[in-house]
Amino acid sequence: MNDQVVQYLEQNADRFVEELKDFLRIPTVSADPACKPHLQRGAEFVYRQFANLGFKAEIVPTAGHPIVYAEWMQSPGVPTVMVYGHYDVQPADPLDLWTTPPFEPTLRDGCLYARGATDDKGQVFTHIKSAEAWLRTIGKLPVNLKYVIEGEEEVGSRNLDDFLAARKEQLNCDVAVVSDTSQYAPNQPAITYGLRGILAVEITLTGPKKDLHSGVFGGSVANPASGIAKMIASLHDDQGRVQIPGFYDDVIPLSEMERQQFRDLGFDETAFKAELGVAEVAGEVGYSTTERRWARPTCEVNGLFSGYTGVGPKTIVPSKATVKITCRLVPGQDPHKLTEALHQYLKSQCPASLAFEFTSFHGCPAFVFDPNSPYIEAAASAIREAWGVDRVRLIREGGSIPVVQTFKDVLGLDTLLLGWGQNTDNLHSPNEHFSMQDFHRGIRASANLWQKLAEMGQTPVASVPDNLC
Amino acid sequence: MNDQVVQYLEQNADRFVEELKDFLRIPTVSADPACKPHLQRGAEFVYRQFANLGFKAEIVPTAGHPIVYAEWMQSPGVPTVMVYGHYDVQPADPLDLWTTPPFEPTLRDGCLYARGATDDKGQVFTHIKSAEAWLRTIGKLPVNLKYVIEGEEEVGSRNLDDFLAARKEQLNCDVAVVSDTSQYAPNQPAITYGLRGILAVEITLTGPKKDLHSGVFGGSVANPASGIAKMIASLHDDQGRVQIPGFYDDVIPLSEMERQQFRDLGFDETAFKAELGVAEVAGEVGYSTTERRWARPTCEVNGLFSGYTGVGPKTIVPSKATVKITCRLVPGQDPHKLTEALHQYLKSQCPASLAFEFTSFHGCPAFVFDPNSPYIEAAASAIREAWGVDRVRLIREGGSIPVVQTFKDVLGLDTLLLGWGQNTDNLHSPNEHFSMQDFHRGIRASANLWQKLAEMGQTPVASVPDNLC
Repeated sequence: MNDQVVQYLEQNADRFVEELKDFLRIPTVSADPACKPHLQRGAEFVYRQFANLGFKAEIVPTAGHPIVYAEWMQSPGVPTVMVYGHYDVQPADPLDLWTTPPFEPTLRDGCLYARGATDDKGQVFTHIKSAEAWLRTIGKLPVNLKYVIEGEEEVGSRNLDDFLAARKEQLNCDVAVVSDTSQYAPNQPAITYGLRGILAVEITLTGPKKDLHSGVFGGSVANPASGIAKMIASLHDDQGRVQIPGFYDDVIPLSEMERQQFRDLGFDETAFKAELGVAEVAGEVGYSTTERRWARPTCEVNGLFSGYTGVGPKTIVPSKATVKITCRLVPGQDPHKLTEALHQYLKSQCPASLAFEFTSFHGCPAFVFDPNSPYIEAAASAIREAWGVDRVRLIREGGSIPVVQTFKDVLGLDTLLLGWGQNTDNLHSPNEHFSMQDFHRGIRASANLWQKLAEMGQTPVASVPDNLC
Repeated sequence: MNDQVVQYLEQNADRFVEELKDFLRIPTVSADPACKPHLQRGAEFVYRQFANLGFKAEIVPTAGHPIVYAEWMQSPGVPTVMVYGHYDVQPADPLDLWTTPPFEPTLRDGCLYARGATDDKGQVFTHIKSAEAWLRTIGKLPVNLKYVIEGEEEVGSRNLDDFLAARKEQLNCDVAVVSDTSQYAPNQPAITYGLRGILAVEITLTGPKKDLHSGVFGGSVANPASGIAKMIASLHDDQGRVQIPGFYDDVIPLSEMERQQFRDLGFDETAFKAELGVAEVAGEVGYSTTERRWARPTCEVNGLFSGYTGVGPKTIVPSKATVKITCRLVPGQDPHKLTEALHQYLKSQCPASLAFEFTSFHGCPAFVFDPNSPYIEAAASAIREAWGVDRVRLIREGGSIPVVQTFKDVLGLDTLLLGWGQNTDNLHSPNEHFSMQDFHRGIRASANLWQKLAEMGQTPVASVPDNLC
């Protein structure tokens, strides 16, 4: 990278930390109505960062907390990148478990302790300071940048979709960057290139029109709890494979390269079992725990209820039984098609003596960023240099990150998930912290990234895909 | 029966109704603390009935509402009969659904409308007035009588067991009589000679030590909701037969005579399905609906819960799943042995990756009074004469009546369940009523019964059985 930029980062490292502390002192707890003025202050803090650098910036009011939007579009012919992050934080409770107060940032053992240190103020700040370094030294950015920094991520991003839809043209970009995840492990930086999709349904079986006395009527009418149990039991065979017809038909298999990458991560199954408190791992035969979590589709019961759920016995035949099921989907699987397949399969398992009711909540396909894409390589190269490591882990996540789906759905954008934090940084817990080494490496990686992406040249702006969900 | 007794019943019929109205005007709602003084008044009303007839009577205080005990033991060498009933009533709510107020007894279309009219003041009164008729005409009773009329039946008879245990010697009898059930249908009087037993258990399966994110972990650990579903599914085969090893081994099969009696009852399956709101009946193959309800053992899920049970989806792998199960037992089956068999069977169905926890709540064997017993024949003969019918239905009930089990367990007594009411008398509902024709036929049947039992001669006092539960 440009020597001047590198030098600037080194010379200003301490000031970056002091400024981050200022940011962290603002208690931007989006869930707490009493913090509303602090959210406004938080937005203004972010706005000033951009305004001071010459960005075209604005504080966009919403029905909730404001969104800060800023853009620098002065390099024609190079890629345009959108950075997304959030300036709001989780509540700090329980306060008595914090060693130092959550909104009095404190350095200890190389880490900065404060609510929001890593989630997401510290990580957002890396992408602001990287831009500053380019602008204060070279006077311009290698790429065009658009920042969307919202104030409601911790309360479900409830006004983000409207903002994105309203600004769809303005937000045209080549790729999105989000730093709100973690490294694979300390000194093992990672790029998350795949997320599973999801479908969610609920099934209710009804037998008698009200709960019946199990003595007077038991044995003479179908019990919906037994019926739903048979239905659930029919979802998997004894090898852990999902039995819904066609469930695996469209699955794009993991490549041998990806399986090898997963193996190379050196997953510690003993530690995993201890952390979860299970005697054994379980799941689909023929796949490792990592593959089962990240890259194989599932069908899980999330909730189940029927009849009496209080203390002690109650002698009834329940009138109803309900099960909530989600399937995690992998690339190739269509949530709409599989919702219907699940519907038909379960209906076929339902005894004629029970009424069957099916509700579909939502569905969205898996997200995967081609691990061989030049964007991934650009990001990996930027990170390798910043971390001084030979390799960057390419990992997937088993869950879905809603904002990534939104970018895909509304803006047609793929997202680079670049996590500078650690899983052990106590996100959402007392004593949240961020390693200052990771903070500075993150700024450096971000500054590198703008250059690496510029070197790729501009790609056509992606169009909005058809598979909205 | 003795002409003088018959004549007395006819001449005093209207007064009996007026006295019953006085009894019904006392709002003896045992569940309502504000009614406590009325319960005391109710007990005193019952006490005076007996005292006026020369019974040795007392109002026995308990930790709750008092028990009235009365005995007439002046006929050596003849059987001693214990009559059980209760003077407390269900709450009258919702009041606005009553045509006339619940504690202002009103005659309408041959029925007396009031809370407690049939459950159980009216039915209790038949056994008091029958004794009165004998004592006011002949001057003595054909049998020895002991009455236990409690005030807490509608709140679980919570002080009855202590009373029975404390008075075990005093309560020595040949047989118990309870009129707190119904006829099979109008003008089809019945004797209930069998009740099913019960065992009740709860099983909890535990997977991970807390609910897990179904995206991050789903597919890699055993889901306890799926595990419990497989367990429940394994309880029955596709013919509705319970799969617990040994479950049917000790079942005493229904005799061909009993099956024929059941068939002769002319069960209306279409009406039954409409009443319950089910498209089809279900259950063990090879048995009729009546047999399934009254005389075949069952294994029913009463409650089932796991994970998220609120509105909409929640993406978790539950930590725990719990099922509540009761088995109804028939003569021959041992609740303790089958509880253990169920325990072992379910444990064998539990995957090694889930922790298994089993709780047994209680169990008691089925009760059956030999339908060929001379007591049954004596009661049937008394009823036939009072009702002017050729036959009395011999029926069973699928449930358990706790007090019958208590008499068996504590006093070693069999119970004649002689119901004078109708299922349609609105027990526990607004507009409870009792046909005055049934009331008078009940008194007449009761008066007959004392004579018929006397004609049997005295039988040895039953001993306490070994199979306490």
